Amino acid sequence: MDAIDARQGRVKRLPREVRERQILDAAVRVFSAHGYHTASMDEISDVAGVSKPMIYAYLGSKEDLFAACIRREATLMMEAIAGGVQGDSAPDMQLWQGLRAFFSFVGAQRDSWRVLHRQATSQGGPFSDELVAMRGRAIELVDALLVRSATKQGMDEQATKGTSAMAAALVGAGESMADWWVDHPEVPGRTLATWLMNLVWMGFGDLVEGKVWTPNED
Amino acid sequence: MDAIDARQGRVKRLPREVRERQILDAAVRVFSAHGYHTASMDEISDVAGVSKPMIYAYLGSKEDLFAACIRREATLMMEAIAGGVQGDSAPDMQLWQGLRAFFSFVGAQRDSWRVLHRQATSQGGPFSDELVAMRGRAIELVDALLVRSATKQGMDEQATKGTSAMAAALVGAGESMADWWVDHPEVPGRTLATWLMNLVWMGFGDLVEGKVWTPNED
Repeated sequence: MDAIDARQGRVKRLPREVRERQILDAAVRVFSAHGYHTASMDEISDVAGVSKPMIYAYLGSKEDLFAACIRREATLMMEAIAGGVQGDSAPDMQLWQGLRAFFSFVGAQRDSWRVLHRQATSQGGPFSDELVAMRGRAIELVDALLVRSATKQGMDEQATKGTSAMAAALVGAGESMADWWVDHPEVPGRTLATWLMNLVWMGFGDLVEGKVWTPNED
Repeated sequence: MDAIDARQGRVKRLPREVRERQILDAAVRVFSAHGYHTASMDEISDVAGVSKPMIYAYLGSKEDLFAACIRREATLMMEAIAGGVQGDSAPDMQLWQGLRAFFSFVGAQRDSWRVLHRQATSQGGPFSDELVAMRGRAIELVDALLVRSATKQGMDEQATKGTSAMAAALVGAGESMADWWVDHPEVPGRTLATWLMNLVWMGFGDLVEGKVWTPNED
C-alpha cells in the first residue's frame, strides 16, 4: 500500500529510485524465500507496499525483476570486494582482503545473494547472462591484481600470460568454496578465506610441509 | 531405420545396451549441435536409426534423455580422470595426472561434453542435480588425494580439516578454467594443467618469485 499523506489526501510521491529500491528489496526477500518459480508478483507487491502495475511499469516482468535483483546483488558484491581491498597493500594482503570481503558478503547475505546465485544458475536464460557478466568483472579484477603482483616482482609479460586463466580459476575456486559452505555453515568465513588464501598463495605443496600464510595484520 | 536381416526377413534384434548407446551417441550429437530446447526427438531418432517409440520406451522423455546424456558424459569423464591417475605416484604427480586427464577429456569432447555441461548448467532442474552429483564425486576424489598427501607428510587430522573445502575450491577452479578455455582455444590443455597445478601446488606467492612446479616425468 502506498503511504497516504493525510494533509494532502493523496498518495505520497516517492522518487523513482526509492520505489525501485523498495521493490527490489521485497523481490529479493520473496525470491529467496520461495524460489523463482513459486514466488508471486502479488506477494512482492504486498511486501514492497507498491502496486503490481507500478512494479510492471518500473521494472517489467517477473523475469526482468529477477534479472534486476541478480544485477543489483552482483553489483553490491563487487562493490563490497573492491571496497575491502586497500590499493596500497602488498599483493598478498590485497588478495586476502578481497577474499575476506567476498566471504563476509556471502555470509551476511546467506538468505538472499546465495539463494539468488544458486537459483540464477539453475534457472538459466537471461539470469545466466547476468552471472556470466558478473564473473567476467570479478575475473578482470583478480587478473589485474595478479598482474600487478607479478610485475612488481619483475616478471616479464610472457610469464604473466597465464594470469587471466589463473584469475578465472581463483574466481571459480571462491564460488565453489562458497557453495561448499552451504553444507558446512559452522565454519567461519575467515577460516574459509584463510584456507583459500593458503591454497592459492602458498600452494598445497607448501602447506603439507607446514608452511602456512598468515596475514601480517595480526 | 532398423537394419533388416535379409534371410530372416525381420528387424534385427540388437541387445538393449547397444540400442541405448546408439541413442545416447545420437542425442549427445544433436543436443550439442542445436542446444536442448531446439533439439528434436525426430532428429535424434534419425541420427540414431532408432524409432521414436523405442527411444521413449528405453530412455523416456527428452528431459530424461538429456539427463541420461549428462550422466553418461559425467561418468566417462570421471573414469578418464581416475584412469589417468597412477595410485603409486607421489601426491603432486597424482594431482598433475588428474588435471592432465581432465583437460584432455574436455579438449577431446569440445563438441559434446562442454556444450552439455554449459547447457546443463543453464537449463537447471534435473540437469543441475546430475551436475551436483558429478561435482560431489569429483570433490571426494580430490579430497582423498589431498588427505593422503597431507597424512603422508605427518599432518594430523586437525590440520587436514580444510581439505574438503580445498578440494571443492580445486574442482571449481578446474571447471572455471575449462570455461575460460572456451574463449582461448589456442592454449594447449597441457599448458592449462600446468598453470592450475602451479597455482594450487606452488601457490602464486612462489610463482611470482620464479619458483615453478614441473612434472618430474620430463
